[in-house]
Amino acid sequence: MQKQVDYEQAIKTKYPEQIVIAVATDKNGKPNPITLGWTMIASGRPPMMAIAVASSHYSIEAIRHAKSFTIAFPSAEMADAALFFGSRSGRDTDKFARFECKTEPAKTIDSLLLTDAVANFECTLESETTAGDHIIFVGKIKASHLNSEPKKRLYTIAPGHKLAAVT
Amino acid sequence: MQKQVDYEQAIKTKYPEQIVIAVATDKNGKPNPITLGWTMIASGRPPMMAIAVASSHYSIEAIRHAKSFTIAFPSAEMADAALFFGSRSGRDTDKFARFECKTEPAKTIDSLLLTDAVANFECTLESETTAGDHIIFVGKIKASHLNSEPKKRLYTIAPGHKLAAVT
Repeated sequence: MQKQVDYEQAIKTKYPEQIVIAVATDKNGKPNPITLGWTMIASGRPPMMAIAVASSHYSIEAIRHAKSFTIAFPSAEMADAALFFGSRSGRDTDKFARFECKTEPAKTIDSLLLTDAVANFECTLESETTAGDHIIFVGKIKASHLNSEPKKRLYTIAPGHKLAAVT
Repeated sequence: MQKQVDYEQAIKTKYPEQIVIAVATDKNGKPNPITLGWTMIASGRPPMMAIAVASSHYSIEAIRHAKSFTIAFPSAEMADAALFFGSRSGRDTDKFARFECKTEPAKTIDSLLLTDAVANFECTLESETTAGDHIIFVGKIKASHLNSEPKKRLYTIAPGHKLAAVT
């Protein structure tokens, strides 16, 4: 049976929720990573993915400047990096300088791949749409990369940014 | 280490992926459910959710007509309904007449809630954006409902629409 409740109460049932790390190069040439829980595939042919980024976040400027971004599926071992990248602002922090995270150059865009991620997708910016306090960016996937070792993805498994793999 | 592969190979790492059932009332007054794997939260204040629906699907017409839709988080016990609603077209099938699935009226829009779902969200259509072969609909959440019993959500856990709860 359904009972009407506040949104905040009902949305607690969203977990586990897959997370991604998006990387976009800002106007100073600094690659800026951000951890995001609001993401989905948006098209099959051609393949596209969507991410929702809070309007106030520095990544908005970086994505608009670069017109491209990488989407990485972080592996279960990357929980500390995901928490760091999701809790600092690229406006005043060089996140890759401050937190050790292996990277390698993207092939088709000016961005980075995360070496220990499960997979990485290089995207060119296709569209942006304002949705309340977030902006939805849709990226067209230009190149895809897979970890040469099998890895488990990282999920948010409970409120408060509790992260783990799921089975 | 990352190695470049086809998109089809890399995207297999997306699972488990949470699924939803969206319900929109068509121009004949028939509520039409569709199962979707491509969905995300899109805004915190006001709360909004996004769904990506294949451009060829009947639900596109229904959502545009109704300018509203319900998003249900199906429970683990609803796998058969999710598969049925995701594999038939509302163009020639009254899905709720053909597959038994308990429903109740939505409170603020002309749509249905799924009684055995984990949660239901009533949405008014906020925007639509074309993304390749899909259309992204953003809905503003007007009412939220929770199952009075704790239930586990349904996920796609592997290619081929293999569905289960995750822990």
